[in-house]
Amino acid sequence: MLEKYDLTKMTDDRTFAKEIAPLKERLGVLQRALRDKKIPTIIVLEGWNTSGITMSTNEIIQSLDPRGFTLHAIESPTDEERARPFMWRFWMRTPSKGRIALFARSWYSRALAEKHHNIGIKKTLKDQINSINNFERQLSDDGAVIVKFFLHISKEEQKIRLLEKERNPLTSWLLTRGIWDFHHHYATNLPIIDELVEKTDTDHAPWKIIEATDRKYTILKVYSTLVKSLERKIAAEKEGLLIKGKQKILPLPPKKPVKRRSSPGSEYTNEECQNVLNSHQIEMLELNYLLFKRKIPFIIVYEGWDAAGKGGNITRVARFMNPLGYNVIPISAPNENDRQYHYLRRFIKHYPKAGHFAIFDRSWYGRVLVERVEGFCTEREWQRAYQEINEIEQDYVDCSGGGIVKFWLEISKEEQLKRFRQRANDPQKTWKITEDDWRNREKWEIYNEAVDEMLARTNTEHAPWVVIESDNKWYSRVKVLKTIIRHTEQLL
Amino acid sequence: MLEKYDLTKMTDDRTFAKEIAPLKERLGVLQRALRDKKIPTIIVLEGWNTSGITMSTNEIIQSLDPRGFTLHAIESPTDEERARPFMWRFWMRTPSKGRIALFARSWYSRALAEKHHNIGIKKTLKDQINSINNFERQLSDDGAVIVKFFLHISKEEQKIRLLEKERNPLTSWLLTRGIWDFHHHYATNLPIIDELVEKTDTDHAPWKIIEATDRKYTILKVYSTLVKSLERKIAAEKEGLLIKGKQKILPLPPKKPVKRRSSPGSEYTNEECQNVLNSHQIEMLELNYLLFKRKIPFIIVYEGWDAAGKGGNITRVARFMNPLGYNVIPISAPNENDRQYHYLRRFIKHYPKAGHFAIFDRSWYGRVLVERVEGFCTEREWQRAYQEINEIEQDYVDCSGGGIVKFWLEISKEEQLKRFRQRANDPQKTWKITEDDWRNREKWEIYNEAVDEMLARTNTEHAPWVVIESDNKWYSRVKVLKTIIRHTEQLL
Repeated sequence: MLEKYDLTKMTDDRTFAKEIAPLKERLGVLQRALRDKKIPTIIVLEGWNTSGITMSTNEIIQSLDPRGFTLHAIESPTDEERARPFMWRFWMRTPSKGRIALFARSWYSRALAEKHHNIGIKKTLKDQINSINNFERQLSDDGAVIVKFFLHISKEEQKIRLLEKERNPLTSWLLTRGIWDFHHHYATNLPIIDELVEKTDTDHAPWKIIEATDRKYTILKVYSTLVKSLERKIAAEKEGLLIKGKQKILPLPPKKPVKRRSSPGSEYTNEECQNVLNSHQIEMLELNYLLFKRKIPFIIVYEGWDAAGKGGNITRVARFMNPLGYNVIPISAPNENDRQYHYLRRFIKHYPKAGHFAIFDRSWYGRVLVERVEGFCTEREWQRAYQEINEIEQDYVDCSGGGIVKFWLEISKEEQLKRFRQRANDPQKTWKITEDDWRNREKWEIYNEAVDEMLARTNTEHAPWVVIESDNKWYSRVKVLKTIIRHTEQLL
Repeated sequence: MLEKYDLTKMTDDRTFAKEIAPLKERLGVLQRALRDKKIPTIIVLEGWNTSGITMSTNEIIQSLDPRGFTLHAIESPTDEERARPFMWRFWMRTPSKGRIALFARSWYSRALAEKHHNIGIKKTLKDQINSINNFERQLSDDGAVIVKFFLHISKEEQKIRLLEKERNPLTSWLLTRGIWDFHHHYATNLPIIDELVEKTDTDHAPWKIIEATDRKYTILKVYSTLVKSLERKIAAEKEGLLIKGKQKILPLPPKKPVKRRSSPGSEYTNEECQNVLNSHQIEMLELNYLLFKRKIPFIIVYEGWDAAGKGGNITRVARFMNPLGYNVIPISAPNENDRQYHYLRRFIKHYPKAGHFAIFDRSWYGRVLVERVEGFCTEREWQRAYQEINEIEQDYVDCSGGGIVKFWLEISKEEQLKRFRQRANDPQKTWKITEDDWRNREKWEIYNEAVDEMLARTNTEHAPWVVIESDNKWYSRVKVLKTIIRHTEQLL
């Protein structure tokens, strides 16, 4: 596909001078329109080394208000980024509503570099393409506009430019062996790039190939393509033809019903449970050391009815873990800042480092529970969420080599009432119960339905739900601990 | 000092069983009280290797609601942290209001480790102590409670424990050569630790030395000391004896008046200025490469009257820089999340990476300008800010080896009126002018006084103010660029 492009295209000085000025002005106007409409914008600049990515970036930002964009120069990942799934660092760099994120190189260069050097990635190129497409689709579904450029030059042109850089003492030190190596493999990399570009060229995140031999031609084409793409987006918004309205509706994941019960069936005394807990302590600590040593991360999700005992359960279970190896992430309503981004970002942010546990006290499932029931998001949004959640969980597992287990703490409606009353009457615990809790209780049946659908649609092999019978708190703790042990053992 | 402690102290089983339970309960109650009173709490656990830091941490967190604390296990800094001043990573880990941050090792261990291995630190131990004291005092002045433990064991005891760990296959791999090396230098490190502890033992952030030979004695003493310290803080708050009220008032930095004028005196045509700008372009780019290569960071602060031309100035000046090497940080009013922390944190967060520029479009000086004038902070708070700001700027320069220059863009009151009217009448620019701008203009004289005092008290040798005569926008841009070139050249 890339081979068919005519790399001799040029622009003369007069055409350039005439056409560039109005384009620059239009881009400035567009930036303000995107800001006013709270549209997050992602511009990706990719291309061969020396094809002019930095130059083009520099040209684009000259027309932008520096207060409204962030430029991300993507290089090798830092320690912190390396310890997380591949897409993590890009999720963290997604723009907030109304801002522009410019990527000088991106997830594409990284995928290619890691493929080329055969490092880091535990996934095939095909899986990688799948992750990228999910990522871009999810952002686009949330209202983002994405424009991607590939700056294309021939191997001969690249050689001329590399030699030029080498002669200049200001730039020669920047030419690493890796860059020359990549140059020598131009022919080998061409079909890989071709495949990458072709399979990620979507309606919502299209590729624009730029014949980048001539500097003025490159700048003009980047500018005109960018301006046209953004104007189309703004026009669509104005006509009410929200991109959202044109979305293909994601198929809902199939339902695999999950049975729930609140009581374990047979009785256990607190003492029995305590004994079992203690006997697992050593086992858990050993597993902790081994996961840490082998750099395997693990996510534990707690969801459940109000007063089902999540807090107490987390405290007791965490007691058996190496305190330096886990993090508890309490999730409450999104704040002002969270709401400026895709709803998944604030959870992805807390993905565990390699070798660590992340314990989510409530989670991204809020989207299909409280946000669904209380109408904090649209029906289309929560319906889309089942598939989105399955995708990011799958991606986390595939990329990190880690595990995830999700607990649903089930109690009966009667048990909840009993606990609410206890809390209300105990001065030490009364802070735990609020008006909201009573209000949610009145909606038990509606929540019940949401829980059923959530469990059925997101109970996947790579990220299973485990129902914890929690009328008996001690039993609940034992079962959670046993389940964690079973699931982490499988990773070793 | 450490030598005088009696390391044979022990606690028997009965005393321990009797005393620990009520202490645990009190700590749980205290956590809720701290949360309700929105007090940020910092608990530091330091000590010799194997002295029981992990064990003590684990014990403390058993009494805490996991949703209200974060445990920070401080190890070697990551790439990202290493590229910033020494205290940066600890500023980023300060707790928000009402939360507890537990540090299993901290800035103290890092200061010592870097001293011991002779890496990273460009400062003497004395300077380091000074930075730490400033950091702790600033947090305490903002209402934080800080409790620091040093777990003390003898060299003999440490040897026994290290050998034990070495025999256990679960822990042996954790014993790096560094740990043994540190053990062999116990006697050399003792006086350094002594000095570090003694010189950072302050009223607002006191050290508690724990004789840590006996496990039960250690736990009990950590608990009782912690509970007592926190109860004292809560009691003080209750009686209205806010710690804030007891603060020693910081001396104001001396005033070194800075003259301001809005016009350069002689006239320059736009063309002349444009020519000068272009001739500096190459120079600036070369400096960029050199700073990047030598990993020297640089901070540029823009402050100035509304409509003084900050935005346009930044855009034009940035045009001459390598786009991959700088970041523009637009500062607006603090959001919900920012307000949960010390006011300086949100600025420190954006310190430049090594070799990069950070351009602040407005800055921490908001504290002594808009926040002072509009009453968004107390008088004591903005008065304290002059010294605080001088301290963090000094610390940044000392630790990073980088530079900082601060621009005040001065225009006359008449010129401002002219620009406001132009903006109001130009449909392309009318978005730039708001009611707030007119309101601020009415307070010109009050702002004028605040500007004078700001320039006079914070015009330091390491972080100078440069007044930019900005009635002529082109002249303003030339002077900024020239000043940046002059200041960055000095760093090479």
